[in-house]
Amino acid sequence: MKIAVDAMGGDFAPKAIVEGVMLAKQKHPEIEFQLYGKEDAIREFITDEKNITIIHTDEKINSDDEPVKAIRRKKTASMVLAAQAVKEGKADAIFSAGNTGALLAAGLFIVGRIKKVERPGLMSTLPVLGEGPGFDMLDLGANAENKPEHLHQYAILGSFYAKHVRKITNPRVGLLNNGTEETKGSELTKEAYKLLNAEESINFVGNVEARDLLDGVADVVVTDGFTGNAVLKTIEGTALGLMTLLKGSITDAGTKGKLGALMLKDTLYSLKDKLDYSSHGGAVLFGLKAPVIKTHGSTGPEAVATTIDQIATMLDTNVVGQLVQFFETEDHQ
Amino acid sequence: MKIAVDAMGGDFAPKAIVEGVMLAKQKHPEIEFQLYGKEDAIREFITDEKNITIIHTDEKINSDDEPVKAIRRKKTASMVLAAQAVKEGKADAIFSAGNTGALLAAGLFIVGRIKKVERPGLMSTLPVLGEGPGFDMLDLGANAENKPEHLHQYAILGSFYAKHVRKITNPRVGLLNNGTEETKGSELTKEAYKLLNAEESINFVGNVEARDLLDGVADVVVTDGFTGNAVLKTIEGTALGLMTLLKGSITDAGTKGKLGALMLKDTLYSLKDKLDYSSHGGAVLFGLKAPVIKTHGSTGPEAVATTIDQIATMLDTNVVGQLVQFFETEDHQ
Repeated sequence: MKIAVDAMGGDFAPKAIVEGVMLAKQKHPEIEFQLYGKEDAIREFITDEKNITIIHTDEKINSDDEPVKAIRRKKTASMVLAAQAVKEGKADAIFSAGNTGALLAAGLFIVGRIKKVERPGLMSTLPVLGEGPGFDMLDLGANAENKPEHLHQYAILGSFYAKHVRKITNPRVGLLNNGTEETKGSELTKEAYKLLNAEESINFVGNVEARDLLDGVADVVVTDGFTGNAVLKTIEGTALGLMTLLKGSITDAGTKGKLGALMLKDTLYSLKDKLDYSSHGGAVLFGLKAPVIKTHGSTGPEAVATTIDQIATMLDTNVVGQLVQFFETEDHQ
Repeated sequence: MKIAVDAMGGDFAPKAIVEGVMLAKQKHPEIEFQLYGKEDAIREFITDEKNITIIHTDEKINSDDEPVKAIRRKKTASMVLAAQAVKEGKADAIFSAGNTGALLAAGLFIVGRIKKVERPGLMSTLPVLGEGPGFDMLDLGANAENKPEHLHQYAILGSFYAKHVRKITNPRVGLLNNGTEETKGSELTKEAYKLLNAEESINFVGNVEARDLLDGVADVVVTDGFTGNAVLKTIEGTALGLMTLLKGSITDAGTKGKLGALMLKDTLYSLKDKLDYSSHGGAVLFGLKAPVIKTHGSTGPEAVATTIDQIATMLDTNVVGQLVQFFETEDHQ
């Protein structure tokens, strides 16, 4: 199992990335890591050289680079070389904490789509509040526009992931809509409803509303990239804003409140953990010929290691290979 | 000033509605209220008959009635009669806590659109977390689909409301998008961006992201009804889920945590208040010839009174009349 790592992507690269790889090595001594980037800078954080190969390059893609241009012009950027390694079969998956748009472009133009999958989607496993394994949602913004057929494919992709990678039996697939009734929605969601309802390979539970997502109303939620992006960012903004407000209220509450806050510290920390998406792994650009995984730019070593766990499971279960086969043998668009 | 009240709409009607009207009367002795619904049931909660007229009807629209059908078939339903009173000039505005879809239909088909306004939008004033007057967002779901021209009109409508009703000087209008750069977005938002950017009557501040809404990044946020609905419901679901989780964590935290919680009680209550949309008034179906206002079905007397405050301000400032004039004199689609 070989993972191509863009060691230069992310706010704390290469430190956080390489330290994360070192952490992951303890759990996965069998994985061969290819670290793409500045050799000197990378080597500084390597504590165990076994199964580590450094592929030196001076070029990297910055967070403010225009994605498609960057991929086309910076031909020796760490991310581009890592993607090329996957394309050429030298690596099985690519990991990056760098420019999301550029990684999407590298995934599409270098790694390439699974045959018949029209528009790969960005997918994350989001936490539920309360008990439950969380839910996979896609597209979270790889596309600004989608057709009903794309949502149909997202349902199949997400269902495969929930089943094989997350080990959920018969995962419930929901369509994000503006009401739960079958007749609700835009032209896009009405058409998508019909396609999902007729798809025998998935367990379609109908329309779901944004209000119920964090309650775990479905194991897989499909939506177009524009709406998915808005919903994801709304969850983040609301959760973060509330935590900040809560902190602020506590500070304002005087001695009594501060004492209370001190006593509630553990509670607040466990709440924060619950909201920490990085503990659920990275976002998958799903529908490509190999796992292409992105984590937050601000990600730390632990989250990098968690994400490598996730990649290992994707490779172990051969979820992408199974999808390739599914789309080849079935009559899917 | 005459307000037509659908006294039978909402989970606690007519009690909560009539009690709310009684509360509102104390602050607005000048308003004439027309209460539509079952006379006996309404009369039970009337403590001051001055400026109150009851228009008896046995028929009402239920929360699960199909909106358009209900409006067409239940010709003497309390909501329909109230809307007709507005149409005939017997009342200046309509208030209901009933079936949202039916009220939208009553607004469109009975009260009627402002000339040149193609698709009235559902607008609410949402709170910001932290300091600030909140922001108006539309469309929150009156439409499942919108064109760029509709978003252009929403910007004008929302800007008028923020300026005249909420007394915000030069309100900042933002376009909800999947990135802040001008080039971002779907075909809809890219086209809408151009229209908003060229509109001289508003203070367009560009694209805003869902993540930053609750920080008060704009005073008016325009979006299509599908996305607006999803974002609103995501805010509700996330906030509610977090509060529940926080409560749960506190209960689980043992004696120490409970003591802490007790001490934080005031803090938590002020947080809850902050999130209580009803304290910011009802949702306006905006773009119609008269104020058509909806509150949550589960609304209590205080929220009814707050919403009547809001209607009084809308009527005092003649915001709808000014909009009619704007669209008549300017060259707007």
